[in-house]
Formats: sequence, C-alpha cells, structure tokens
Amino acid sequence: MSSFFGQHLHLALFGQSHGEAIGITMDGFPAGMTIDMDRLAAEMKRRAPGQSSLTTPRKEADVPEILSGVLDGRTTGQPICAIIRNTNTRSKDYGEGVDLVRPGHADYTGHVRYYGFEDWRGGGHFSGRLTAPIVFAGALCSQWLESQGVQIASHIQRLGSVIDDSFMDHPDADVSGLKAMHLPVLRQGLDAAMEQEAMQALQAQDSIGGVIECRITGLPAGLGAPFFDSVESVLSHLMFSVPAVKGVEFGEGFGFAALRGSQANDPFRMEEGKVVTTSNHSGGVLGGITSGMPVIFRCAVRATPSIGQTQQTVSLCTGENAELNIHGRHDPCILPRAVPVIEAMAAIGVMELWKERQACVK
Amino acid sequence: MSSFFGQHLHLALFGQSHGEAIGITMDGFPAGMTIDMDRLAAEMKRRAPGQSSLTTPRKEADVPEILSGVLDGRTTGQPICAIIRNTNTRSKDYGEGVDLVRPGHADYTGHVRYYGFEDWRGGGHFSGRLTAPIVFAGALCSQWLESQGVQIASHIQRLGSVIDDSFMDHPDADVSGLKAMHLPVLRQGLDAAMEQEAMQALQAQDSIGGVIECRITGLPAGLGAPFFDSVESVLSHLMFSVPAVKGVEFGEGFGFAALRGSQANDPFRMEEGKVVTTSNHSGGVLGGITSGMPVIFRCAVRATPSIGQTQQTVSLCTGENAELNIHGRHDPCILPRAVPVIEAMAAIGVMELWKERQACVK
Amino acid sequence: MSSFFGQHLHLALFGQSHGEAIGITMDGFPAGMTIDMDRLAAEMKRRAPGQSSLTTPRKEADVPEILSGVLDGRTTGQPICAIIRNTNTRSKDYGEGVDLVRPGHADYTGHVRYYGFEDWRGGGHFSGRLTAPIVFAGALCSQWLESQGVQIASHIQRLGSVIDDSFMDHPDADVSGLKAMHLPVLRQGLDAAMEQEAMQALQAQDSIGGVIECRITGLPAGLGAPFFDSVESVLSHLMFSVPAVKGVEFGEGFGFAALRGSQANDPFRMEEGKVVTTSNHSGGVLGGITSGMPVIFRCAVRATPSIGQTQQTVSLCTGENAELNIHGRHDPCILPRAVPVIEAMAAIGVMELWKERQACVK
Amino acid sequence: MSSFFGQHLHLALFGQSHGEAIGITMDGFPAGMTIDMDRLAAEMKRRAPGQSSLTTPRKEADVPEILSGVLDGRTTGQPICAIIRNTNTRSKDYGEGVDLVRPGHADYTGHVRYYGFEDWRGGGHFSGRLTAPIVFAGALCSQWLESQGVQIASHIQRLGSVIDDSFMDHPDADVSGLKAMHLPVLRQGLDAAMEQEAMQALQAQDSIGGVIECRITGLPAGLGAPFFDSVESVLSHLMFSVPAVKGVEFGEGFGFAALRGSQANDPFRMEEGKVVTTSNHSGGVLGGITSGMPVIFRCAVRATPSIGQTQQTVSLCTGENAELNIHGRHDPCILPRAVPVIEAMAAIGVMELWKERQACVK
Repeated sequence: MSSFFGQHLHLALFGQSHGEAIGITMDGFPAGMTIDMDRLAAEMKRRAPGQSSLTTPRKEADVPEILSGVLDGRTTGQPICAIIRNTNTRSKDYGEGVDLVRPGHADYTGHVRYYGFEDWRGGGHFSGRLTAPIVFAGALCSQWLESQGVQIASHIQRLGSVIDDSFMDHPDADVSGLKAMHLPVLRQGLDAAMEQEAMQALQAQDSIGGVIECRITGLPAGLGAPFFDSVESVLSHLMFSVPAVKGVEFGEGFGFAALRGSQANDPFRMEEGKVVTTSNHSGGVLGGITSGMPVIFRCAVRATPSIGQTQQTVSLCTGENAELNIHGRHDPCILPRAVPVIEAMAAIGVMELWKERQACVK
Repeated sequence: MSSFFGQHLHLALFGQSHGEAIGITMDGFPAGMTIDMDRLAAEMKRRAPGQSSLTTPRKEADVPEILSGVLDGRTTGQPICAIIRNTNTRSKDYGEGVDLVRPGHADYTGHVRYYGFEDWRGGGHFSGRLTAPIVFAGALCSQWLESQGVQIASHIQRLGSVIDDSFMDHPDADVSGLKAMHLPVLRQGLDAAMEQEAMQALQAQDSIGGVIECRITGLPAGLGAPFFDSVESVLSHLMFSVPAVKGVEFGEGFGFAALRGSQANDPFRMEEGKVVTTSNHSGGVLGGITSGMPVIFRCAVRATPSIGQTQQTVSLCTGENAELNIHGRHDPCILPRAVPVIEAMAAIGVMELWKERQACVK
Repeated sequence: MSSFFGQHLHLALFGQSHGEAIGITMDGFPAGMTIDMDRLAAEMKRRAPGQSSLTTPRKEADVPEILSGVLDGRTTGQPICAIIRNTNTRSKDYGEGVDLVRPGHADYTGHVRYYGFEDWRGGGHFSGRLTAPIVFAGALCSQWLESQGVQIASHIQRLGSVIDDSFMDHPDADVSGLKAMHLPVLRQGLDAAMEQEAMQALQAQDSIGGVIECRITGLPAGLGAPFFDSVESVLSHLMFSVPAVKGVEFGEGFGFAALRGSQANDPFRMEEGKVVTTSNHSGGVLGGITSGMPVIFRCAVRATPSIGQTQQTVSLCTGENAELNIHGRHDPCILPRAVPVIEAMAAIGVMELWKERQACVK
Repeated sequence: MSSFFGQHLHLALFGQSHGEAIGITMDGFPAGMTIDMDRLAAEMKRRAPGQSSLTTPRKEADVPEILSGVLDGRTTGQPICAIIRNTNTRSKDYGEGVDLVRPGHADYTGHVRYYGFEDWRGGGHFSGRLTAPIVFAGALCSQWLESQGVQIASHIQRLGSVIDDSFMDHPDADVSGLKAMHLPVLRQGLDAAMEQEAMQALQAQDSIGGVIECRITGLPAGLGAPFFDSVESVLSHLMFSVPAVKGVEFGEGFGFAALRGSQANDPFRMEEGKVVTTSNHSGGVLGGITSGMPVIFRCAVRATPSIGQTQQTVSLCTGENAELNIHGRHDPCILPRAVPVIEAMAAIGVMELWKERQACVK
C-alpha cells in the first residue's frame, strides 16, 4: 500500500493530481496546539508552483481546507484531515497519457501495479502534487516541535554543477534567512549561480537535479532505537517517499567510505555538565539513536523527468516503440519546491520518534 | 522499539552480544519450502568472524538452532524462530564498558535511551553480532526468492581509496563467483588491493570504511508502491537498520545531482514483446515501483569504531573527560562481513514487497 | 489512536459530528471494481437517521463525496477517500455540552483523554455519526466480496424483551428480505412487536437495547490464523469499535458455558467431496480460522444513552454534582441503524482477512 | 499472520506443541524493572498441567528460560525473549494426527491454511501450550502495572451449570485469595460444586465449559480511544486470541439487551474531588476509554474438544467419513488453567493501552 505511515503519529495520504481533491489525515497529533495559520500558509506557498521562472506557472491556490481535528484554531488530539481541491487541471498539458508512457515517470510501473485501472491523468496518485498535503502535515509537526526547541532547516547543497557549503562544515550556520530564499543556500550569492544553471537547462528544454541538505537542531539525546527503528531508518523511509529522491545519507554519508575509524569517530567530551561530541561526522545519530548533536542528512534529487525534448518510449496501446513529446510547461528544477517537502518529512519523522520515545515509560 | 519489522513478512529480533542467546522470529514465511541447510550454513559463515586476517579471530560457531516453524526440513508457514547461543564472550576484551563510552558506538546513546538499564557488555543489543539472525532470516528469503527466479548479488564497490566497477556500468556482470570471495569485487584482482588497504589500517591500529553495491535481478515489474511503501523506502529502512550503514542510494543515486533530465531518464522500448528501458539510471525503480529492470543500490559503510588507538571520551561515572584504550582484536574492515547482511536485508525487503503485492487482489 | 485499522486493508477514519465534514480513507482496496452507486446509497440510507418514528428526525443527506481512488466509476487500487459534509448541526440540541457530562457518553472520558481540547459538540469525534463513513467503506467491501460469492446478512435477534430466532437454529434462513426491513427479523411479524417495545421506551422518554446477529456465508476455509489474528480477534476488534456494542460472541458464544465437549464439537463429514461439519456450534471458526461453514456472531448493543429523563451528573466547570436534561429528539432504539454498521464492519474484517490470506504465497 | 500483537508493546509468539521449544519475544517493555522470579514462576504454575484431577497429569516444568532483555534480574528496555523447551511430548497420545481431523480442533482448518505443511503433532502451533509464553509475558506486565497501582483479578464465574457471583454485583469483592484457589470463585465453597460438575464430565469421558470474569482496578481515566483502539477492541482482540474463548462482554454485556437507557446509564457524581459513577454497568469503559472505574469483562470458554468419546470425523488421507477415538488423558475442564491466561492477556492489553497513552504528548 502507498498511503499510510507511522505507528505513533499516523498519516494517511490520498488523492490524484486530476481527481476531486488530494489530502491527508494525521492521527496522534498532540492536543491543544494553536495552529499558526499564517506560517502554515507560508510553508504551503514555498512548495506551490508559480513562485518563479524556475517553476511551472500553474497557479494553484493550494489552500488546505481543514475538515477535522481542529476546534477554535486548536488541535483536539483527534484525527486531523485536510484536503486541497484540484482546480487547474488541464489534462491536455500532459501528453498522450497512459498510451505513451513517460520515461522517468511512474506511468508504466503504475500501469502494471494497478492492472491498468490507475488514474493516469497528470501522474494521478503518483503526482508530485501529493506532496502538498505532506507539507501541510509537516508544517503542523514543525510548529509543535519548535515549541519543544527543535528547529529544522534546509538548503540546496548542490544544483547541477553548483555546490554550496555543507552543514557538516558549518554546523552553526545562520539559517534564519533560508525560508525566505527561493533557492536557499548557505554561501551568499550562490543562488544566482544556481538559478543560471537551472535557466540553462530550461533553455535546452531540459531539467537539472541536485542535493538538499537538512539540519535538525534542539533534539534531545535518546530518540530512535537500534535496528528497525533507527533514526536513519525512519527518516530515510520518509525521504525516499518523496518523488525524485534517489539517495539519502547521514553525517559524512558516502564520504565515510574514504575515512578511517580514527577520522570517523566523534570524540566525547563534557561541556557545561553535558555530554557532547567535539565533531559530528555521524550526523547526530549513534547506533540509530540521537546523540543530542545536530542531525544532518542529505537527499539526492533527480532532475524532473518531464522535459520538452523528444523522448523514446513505447505505446501501451500498440505495443510498439514510439516517440514522445511532452507539451506544456514544467519545472526545470524541482529542488526549490522539494526543500519544504524534505523539511516536512523531517518534522513528521521526528514527531514519530518523539512519540515513540514518550511511550517508553520507565 | 527496535526489534520488529514488516507488515506482511514479520521479523522480531532479540538478544545481546553477551546475553544467553540472540535470535529472530520470522512470521509470514511461505509454507512448504525445503530449507537447504548447507547453503544456509554457508551464508552464516560468510558473516561469521575469523574468516581472515581482516576480521576478528573470535571463533564462534554461529550455528542457528531452529526452534519452530520447520517440520521435516520444510517450512510450516508458521513462525520460524532460530537462536544462536553466545559462547565466546570475554567481557574484558571490551574496555571499561559503560563507564567510558566508546566514540562512534551506541554506548552513550543507548545509556540515555534505556535509562542506564541497558546491557552494555560488548555492545549488548546494539552489537553487530545481532546481524547473525538477520542473515539467517535473509538466507531463507533468498532461497524462496530464487525459486521465483530472483537473484541477489553484492560486491564491495569501494574500500577506502580502492574503487571497484559498478553494476551501473556492468548490469550483466557475472556474479557467480562473488559469494566465494572474501572480498567480493567485480574487477579481477582488485580484492588484493583492498586487502592491502585494510591491512594498512590494521597496522595503524585503525579501521577503514567503504561502499557495498547490491543488484537484484529477476524481479517482476509492479512490486512496491508510491510514497510510504516505495521500494526505496522499504529497502532503505532495512539497510539503515544495519549498524555502520550511513548512506543508501539507488541507481545513479547522488550522481543524479549532476545529471539533466535528458540524461537521467531511461527510454522505454519493446524487446521481445516486453517493455524494457534501454538504460537503467533509475536502478530498476520508477515511482517507487519495480520496472522489471535490475534493482541496483549502494550502501555507505563507515569504518568500525572499535580501534586500537587512544581516544578521547568521557566517564559516565565521574562525569569527567577521559582517555579510552580499547583492548582486544577488532575487525579493521567490517565490509566483508557486512556484504551477506546487506544481501539478507535485501532478500527480506523483497519478500515483504512480494507478499504485499500478492495481497493486491483484483 | 483512534482512527486507523488494518494491515492489508487500511482504514483511516476522521471527523467530528459538528465539524466541517466526516470521512474515511481506505487503502488496499482491489483495483478495477465498478461501484454500484445505487446500492451504495441504499446502504448509506439504512444507517441514516429519519427513517422512522424510531430514529431521530434529523434529516441528513449523508451522501458521500468520493474524493479519490475512483476513476470513471471504477476503483483504481489507490486510496479511496470519501467525505460527508455536516449540514444539520444544531448545537443547542445537545444540552449544555462539555460542562455537564452526559451519563453513558464519552463526554467525560474524552475530556480526560484529550486534555480538555476535544470537540465536545454533539459528541464530536465520538459521535455515532462517524459510523456513516464506515458504512461507506463496508459497502464497497461487500460489493467486492459478493463478486467472490460471499454474502453478509444481519437481523435484530433481540430488542428489549422481544427475541427473534437465531441463525444458529436456521443456518439457511432466507435473508433476501432483511435489507428492506426497517427492523429486520427472521420470524415473520416480529418486527411489529419490536417496534411496539421501542415506542414504549420512547413514550417513557427512554431508550432500549438489543442484540444484532450476523451471518457470513460463502467464505472459503482457511481465512484467519491462530492467536492474534484469529477471525474472532479481527472481527471482535471491529465490532467493539462500533459505539454501543458491549458484547460479541461467536457460534454458541456464552451458551458454550453450559455445553459439554460432546455437545459443543462439530462432527466432520464428507459431502460431495467437500469437508463439512454436520453442526456449526463453533460459528464457522475453528482455531481462529474459517472452516468453510457460515460464520455466525452476535453483538450486544446497549440502549442509546441520550434519553429525555432527568439524569444525575457533574459539572466540569463547577466541580459539583448537577442535574442534566438532554433536549431535542434522540433515537429510542439505535439497533435498526446499527445493523448496516455491523454488516459494514463484518465486510471490512473479511476483506482484511482475505487479503492477508492472499499474501500467504506458497 | 498469527504470532504478533501490539503497536506500543510488541509481542511475537512462536513454537509448536511438539517442536523444539515454544516462546515469545516482547519488545517495548519498560526498562529497569526488577523481576520477581518467584511470582513469575507461580503464575506459570497456575497455567501448567497436572495441578489437580481436573487437569492432564502431563507434568511439564514449564520453566521459561529468559534469553534476552534482562540483566542482573532487571529489564533492560530491550526485547525480552523467553523460551520453554518441549520435554514431555508423547505423540501417540494425540490420536492418528492429521489423517483423522479432531472435531472442535484446528486440525482441518490449519491443514487448509498451511497447505498441508503445518506441524500437526499435538496441535502444533495451535496448541493451548502456546499460552505458556503468553502467561510469561503477561506476568511481567502485571508486575509493572502493580507498581502503578493496577490490579488484575479473575474468577470462574460459571462452570457448566454452577454459577458464581459477579464483580458486577460485588465490585469491591476481596480477591486476595483467588490466585491460591485451583477453582477461584467469589462465593465461598462454590469451587467444590464446580469440581463435582467437572468430575462428572470426566467420568462421562466428556468435558465442560464455563465463563471467566476479570476485573481490573486502579486504572486511570483516559486509557484507550474511540473506534479502532477502544479498550474493548484491544482487550477483546487479545481475549479471542486465547484458544477456546468464544465470547467476550464488558460490564452488563449481553445483559444490556434487556436494559433501558435509564437503567444502563451510570450517573456521575463528585467524590472527594474526583469524578466517579454511582454504578458501573458500562464496566469501566465509556466511548472506548477508561472512566477510572473498575474494568470488568467476561469471557465464554468452550469445553475442551479433546474428549474420550468416539466422534465422527473424516480422513484426510482417504477422503472418507471415519470414527475417531482420542486416547490419553485430557483436561475435562480447561477453565482453571485458562484463568491465568485471561489475566495475562488483560495485563498485556492494559500495558499496550498505557504506552499508547504515554505517547499522547500535549
């Protein structure tokens, strides 16, 4: 199944790109939190299309309607369901649909998985549009976690050939301005270079990939567990649920391959009566459990497969090879819109781990 | 919680390195399979220590005793439980234990997680030794999957600075000899260079990391689902459950960051009446669902944190900084022993996805 | 948590009686089924209020809006979400609300559970109105199960002092007319006596309880499992999720207390090459697994707690004892509306068991 | 699947009556509890056979070996696994086995469920012997819950025609002596009458059923949730997992059928600043959530199907009708041994609900 996640915080995701509505139900969310609707809307807007020349002009309100779980602006502790109506759904923009399967998309695999009964219009249930409800759920989790001192921040660590600094080298980087940037980066001015690279791809009727890095601070030590509920397992499970994410690494990640134990280990020391590590190669997770240091991970994001160039594919109708031309405008670079999704998934994962920890009565 | 996984194939892992026994219960395994005990033993031996100068000499039989779920050598379809007694458990080899927490290990985080009541001896429940029951469970899954035409093969794609070829460039690489190699590699003779690099680390009282690459062939299209049960989510969840794994990537993985959509997309074409892709950048997964092409992924494995060098740490007893010297012999390179664990986890994940697919009645 | 059920068929229920909308998401439902909307509407109507003098006149359309999972009237195999808007919500009909907690209701326990942040209006998330989405989900399951030859039928086996025959004595009872009866009974004319008993309760500003009996025929042998996933465990879990259900029994149920083994055992015999039992005291379940005989169970339904009489309670505001008078009209007997809910839960449970069975590959 | 339960406290049950061993893994149990091994052994002994003329003389030690999760007699917070070796396994006592399926047993349904590969010896995985590990797990939960002021007590409320008083009429009944009684009853001397009734069944080569009533006191208000995680749903799920249980009812249970709302409702009142109900017809659960009043429920237990009389059955080998004579000694009345199992399941259920509640952070 595809739509649900979590044992302590429970999500149920539904909808298709061109269906009546998309939405999500979140159960297990704490009671009594007053929702900051403005900040919620701001998060939704970060993910919405039409923010810049880099993203599709498709202007959707993407305003979630909260159907349940909230009373007088406060969460009730009961299931929260929110839906987003599908308004701007011009099917003709999406090529010949399920006949000519789009390379890099789920058209073919979804067709097999659902025996040909899937809603193929605009990606249907596979559409990146389904990430909107995820941002809604994650934004609520973020607001609650912030009340506990947890802060989640992300930036585009790489876009094509343009590479930003890393939280690994700047663990205390000022992140206050990131949410306001369309292409959030740590190194000042680098966003211009990234935009240029993306525009070049666009002009070539192409798209470009990159890497998003996320940092979670303010976590207590002791969240997570060894083996099947490790922090890495829970977070990677969520990150790989984001369309286009094809790699996830924590701390030094694949860089560990070249490191010796003496370089990879993070020495412990006492600081103001608190156990800390003097380095954070592990990315804040030891043995699957948070150490109290910042959790740092990166997600590889592939270029959006919808491009203007002619592509080779097959016709499910004729069973013959064919050429595909995808019409309409598409994001040359999905990363700016993926950033809030990654942050939302991080917030959801931390909330799940937080509640699991709470259940560990002594 | 830490010990269980799966909704269709269910695992429950238990035990501590120096406890009475370690083991696993697997429920949902198909009925009627005759277990090939020799091949099972061979898999267990691949993971066991003492295979070479690269691994600890600790000679453990690691022979699983099957307590349930098997009758006359055949699976009954009921819960299969197997245990492995802990025999060679010389606690003094494991430093001062929970007082001086070992950098890179779970000593500190486990201490916090379990309120100081954890079994700290030799890593306790966090010990890599817990991967032995996982290999047992995975080996059974592999045997069943092979009867369905599924084959799982892995090699050490990188060890320190020594880099092997990739399945990405050699999708049809002959893997028949890999299981017999202590350092399985695709490029002939490269294992010698890897051994040398590992020995250098050992001589420096250090350890070294690397990357393991896994290829799964013979999978039908249609396994997995979008979002929370994507093939990548399920497999990464399991891979990150393996101690020392800090990164997971599928297909081009982080390489996607530099690729344009036109380079990243895998064109479709008909081949003998079957839909295939002419390239496999996606690593056999589109929209979270298998495409029928080989599933290819890589796991970054950090160097084992147990090294002979003096390390900086803290004393949980005195609350002061301290120096730690870990005595006894330890693996300078865990990769050869991690390979069968990665394969086992892959088999477990595919079995879970297979059963989920079976449940999708039309 | 309260809102989700199932490992193979997955439900997520949400909404409050006086919120924006109530609804349910069902994931794992088979792809390709054409929904019979008329029969679906008929099932919804059976549960809806205002059907007779025995039920509240509150006239709600209760027409579900399907938001996802259906294309051109056919299920896609992806999450199906349906919502029902709350229209007729006259709060003043519901007494003084959370101040004076209503005896027999969840006002007080919900207040504790949700730290005082619950939506108390009209029972909120606890409202029997939440059973409408359950009937929606169950009706879809019933339609699919019927295509497999499974039939679910129920009747009011007892209402107050009026006792109907039992499927235990009439395993082959003709059930074709039951769905059309407002008070479905097996013994002709008994519904009049039941209506009279209910009316007497109504005239006394009171309500009355009863027993609903359900029979599931056409099930193959082999569904379910011993212990934690027994047919009885799965079905009772669902039945006790229905507000007002306080007892569940299978086959002879509590009658087994007086039976000896020789009376309780169902002898086996061959019939047309098929293994059957010559009696069915066990109610079609042996060792937690279906035997192929009809599954028969009964649910005890308590009288609806909302009555016109003055009741003793406490004020959560003043912390003092108080008297409560509940205004407005309420069902004197919830049984006729509970029947389709019980059938829906039965269909949901069988679908879950069916899918679990499908996942048991050999 | 059959062997696992729980989202917060996790159980994995395994083993067959005549296999190597039976056992259970429990994950999520609180860390730091010192196990009272004597009381644990006492609980195991209550369930063990050979306690009296009413139970099979089969003398099994039934001493659990704890393999993991305990260090120096204290729980570590990590998975606890305990096994019990199967010693006294005289297969010939179990009739002709899978050829002639035993009426009332799971021989036939298990044969279908597991495609003929099941371990049929002595009931295999279906054997009541599997309840021994459940008593082990439940006893640990009971010890922890007692430290929180929760007390669980049960008695045989009915055996055949002999009917004991009910906790419904004696909510404050002294239960201190119950655990020491072989046939625990509330009304003094009634156990003699029950024993006589059981002996009569035995002399007739027959067996007899009954009802077990359980009371849980000291529970806080607020455990459980509406709908799918109601206290009744969680507890009934576990109770129906006990072989031979065919009915479960809470409070007045099926007695509610004859009660009017005015009789069924429990009035609230303030008592020493605490909200209580002046009656407890609901059995301590309102809207699926504990009210703080004692939780009271009853389980109908069918007569053990293994009897000495000749029975009609079929031969799976010849496919013809046949006569079955079960040799060896069997319990004429399983109730005394079922009492500790019901209590164990109650403790497991309450622990699950307790942890779920703990996870509900504000």
